Amino acid sequence: MKRYESLAEEIAQSIRTGVLKPGDRLPSVRQASASRGVSPSTVFEAYYLLEARSLIRARDRSGYYVIAGTKVLPPEPELPSHPSDESAPVDVSELVFEVLESIKTRDVVPLGSAFPSPLLFPLPRLAKSMAASVQDMDPWSTVDDLTPGNAALRRQIALRYLADGMHVHPDDIVITNGALDALNLCLQAVTRPGDSVVIESPAFYAALQALERFGLNAIEVPTHPRDGVDLDALARALTRHKPKACWMMTNFQNPLGSTMPDEKKQALVNLLAAHEVPLIEDDVYGELYFGSKRPAPAKAFDTQGLVMHCSSFSKCLAPGYRIGWAVPGRYAKDVARLKLTTTLSASAPAQAALADYLAKGGYDKHLRQLRHALSVQQSAMMQAVVRHFPRGTKSTRPGGGYFLWIELPGNVDTLEIHRQALAQGISVAPGPMFSAKRGFRNCLRINYGHAWTAKTEEALVTLGRLIAANGKMNLMDKEP
Amino acid sequence: MKRYESLAEEIAQSIRTGVLKPGDRLPSVRQASASRGVSPSTVFEAYYLLEARSLIRARDRSGYYVIAGTKVLPPEPELPSHPSDESAPVDVSELVFEVLESIKTRDVVPLGSAFPSPLLFPLPRLAKSMAASVQDMDPWSTVDDLTPGNAALRRQIALRYLADGMHVHPDDIVITNGALDALNLCLQAVTRPGDSVVIESPAFYAALQALERFGLNAIEVPTHPRDGVDLDALARALTRHKPKACWMMTNFQNPLGSTMPDEKKQALVNLLAAHEVPLIEDDVYGELYFGSKRPAPAKAFDTQGLVMHCSSFSKCLAPGYRIGWAVPGRYAKDVARLKLTTTLSASAPAQAALADYLAKGGYDKHLRQLRHALSVQQSAMMQAVVRHFPRGTKSTRPGGGYFLWIELPGNVDTLEIHRQALAQGISVAPGPMFSAKRGFRNCLRINYGHAWTAKTEEALVTLGRLIAANGKMNLMDKEP
Repeated sequence: MKRYESLAEEIAQSIRTGVLKPGDRLPSVRQASASRGVSPSTVFEAYYLLEARSLIRARDRSGYYVIAGTKVLPPEPELPSHPSDESAPVDVSELVFEVLESIKTRDVVPLGSAFPSPLLFPLPRLAKSMAASVQDMDPWSTVDDLTPGNAALRRQIALRYLADGMHVHPDDIVITNGALDALNLCLQAVTRPGDSVVIESPAFYAALQALERFGLNAIEVPTHPRDGVDLDALARALTRHKPKACWMMTNFQNPLGSTMPDEKKQALVNLLAAHEVPLIEDDVYGELYFGSKRPAPAKAFDTQGLVMHCSSFSKCLAPGYRIGWAVPGRYAKDVARLKLTTTLSASAPAQAALADYLAKGGYDKHLRQLRHALSVQQSAMMQAVVRHFPRGTKSTRPGGGYFLWIELPGNVDTLEIHRQALAQGISVAPGPMFSAKRGFRNCLRINYGHAWTAKTEEALVTLGRLIAANGKMNLMDKEP
Repeated sequence: MKRYESLAEEIAQSIRTGVLKPGDRLPSVRQASASRGVSPSTVFEAYYLLEARSLIRARDRSGYYVIAGTKVLPPEPELPSHPSDESAPVDVSELVFEVLESIKTRDVVPLGSAFPSPLLFPLPRLAKSMAASVQDMDPWSTVDDLTPGNAALRRQIALRYLADGMHVHPDDIVITNGALDALNLCLQAVTRPGDSVVIESPAFYAALQALERFGLNAIEVPTHPRDGVDLDALARALTRHKPKACWMMTNFQNPLGSTMPDEKKQALVNLLAAHEVPLIEDDVYGELYFGSKRPAPAKAFDTQGLVMHCSSFSKCLAPGYRIGWAVPGRYAKDVARLKLTTTLSASAPAQAALADYLAKGGYDKHLRQLRHALSVQQSAMMQAVVRHFPRGTKSTRPGGGYFLWIELPGNVDTLEIHRQALAQGISVAPGPMFSAKRGFRNCLRINYGHAWTAKTEEALVTLGRLIAANGKMNLMDKEP
């Protein structure tokens, strides 16, 4: 922990224990610097951090004041979703494309984005690894690195699993063009048009689009915002619909942020094994935990080779490189062959650059910084939701990742809010993007993966007004 | 033209005009160097080139001799293929994977390879472009370069079309993970499972695999080894089967090497427009012409937006980078959306590196060298086929690319030869890889995209023996 972080933590502790009370003025930067024996910039950084966490607030020219005795967080949504238990074809793509299109403009506030800020990644370090590895590139590596992919990179990925206590052999890994490619290949390997596939409710829209593209039916299973899929409901769906696969995010699910506890993951793997149904596990956010330890993927409990585990470097190291992978268990050969016939291989220079970066070390340090930044930004976003959204708004409190799932009170239409917000330069991801039947109309997914700025704050103010107007609510009618 | 090339051309001219006759001894390197006023290494390189073209041959310690007054070429196959005119499901993948697997071993003589030698490409120059472009990379480019792809690269591609007289707007281009991705996306955009698709006979096996994967039926149309698809047969197939697409290679078709003349391409485009059937055009070899001018793609004749033109840099500039593109005409939006939902985007660093390389110039010079190398190697391969394969062997004479299509006499089984050759460290591509119903059992595709070495010559000798043994032919029973 850096000096400014421990100073901030000390002050936060004083606020939590009531030594400092709401409205109290903090010592000036100069006073604090003198009394604590630290540099003014350390004090400034500590205050900045506390402000980002909405514990203190600067008032023009008069210094910093405590604004909350304990963090005021929005209440959490408490109930799992309750989708229909029928299977159904999917028709959501048009809406998803409309929203995706909107985030490509740089001056839009990207609350609807699927990506964290590219400024959070060590692109200059990666550039060095790229330059070094292409300069030394053996021309024949263009053949050697064909699917299943660069051997050094597969070894580095296997080593990371080993560090987390999982035994994955490099030969079990198929390198892909990002996790999306891995997930699509896994789905193709185990389904045929007309089959049914279990997904979460709400689900990552790419799963919905994949089902739509391959003519598969979706079985949406109730999912709790804290600990994920309802296993009893899943058991009934398995018996009733005989699905050919489940597609799930076990850690920091997109959009809910839910994470299955270990014992639940174990039970999930056992249940699916009993039905001989493969689990396509999307674990792209697993490294972005705010706690003390990486949550295990379901793959860690797989003894039957039925878990088709997918991940990538796109969300935690190298956006744009498009390097992901699958560990498809007993379907490894099928997935590799599908990869060969669809896109042949991932880009050789990108594979070599990542292998070089991982071998040289520094990834864990980068991840620690990234997690810290995301956790601070999550806190700032939650506080802003409390400040600016109508009373009754609920928000998830995910232990990682970079999305909040917001349940709005009353009869709010987030599709309408999405359009109105976009007209004012703000993107959001409306709830219906995440459901086969366009449910979750009163929900929003909000991205907090970008640095908190005055523009973000303004965007939240605007959003709050749009929501209140849409739901005919009075913003003033809030808890103090 | 370099000094040694013009010297070689002078000598070749003397051989063609009969000034030098078969069996004549050439001046020694020392004599020629003195009499022509060039360095010994220039003479040596000229002789090496003439030897590669099989015009002269070195005999141990006694110098170089003319071996042919005019080139002895294998006879050409004269008839188009005659596939069944029924449509049929496809089942060829297992065989294709078996052959593809075999070329991954470096010490196999890669006559069955789908790729030219990676040594033919300017990888160090590309490495410089890669290093420069990742160092300068704007972090936000990871968002900007999302599908349809890097704007600078799309502009460079459009400029190359313009230089060939084609007007393609950068916005009409979708960047993909190589041409294979482009072709697959185009096919998905216009077909549904159960539809029929017209392909050439023989066809590139990736087309067969794509049809198999998507549950499409193949209509194989007779194709002439010199000028491509039989348009009368195509017209009948269009009327009878109402296919949803045609997938064709109009230039240096793989495996035949056939190229449709311009007027035939125009007629093809007109015919398909009359039936409102899109043409998925695979033009990956178009830049590898040996003549004076790039053959136009069918896209050049498209006024209806029905030609879905696909190409890449994998065969002519940057193997392993996996950067290709589609110009899908009226289906551009559908193809871009499919790209977004399957693999999101091509690798951003690879896109930026190619944009930088193309902007800096040098691509045309590289292409001239590449074409020259391939044309020399084609000549050497044809001569070796004449020398070592049984009488009655026919070979195509493609005007570009790096494949010969060999028709073997008698009752030869190339699947058997493939297995026997592989056991001796030689890969070949047996004819049945190129047909939905495993036809062309007496045919081989031979790759001449690798530098000619003593090992290649030995491999041809071995192959000739295997073929003769398989067909119970006498190798000695040949023209002198």
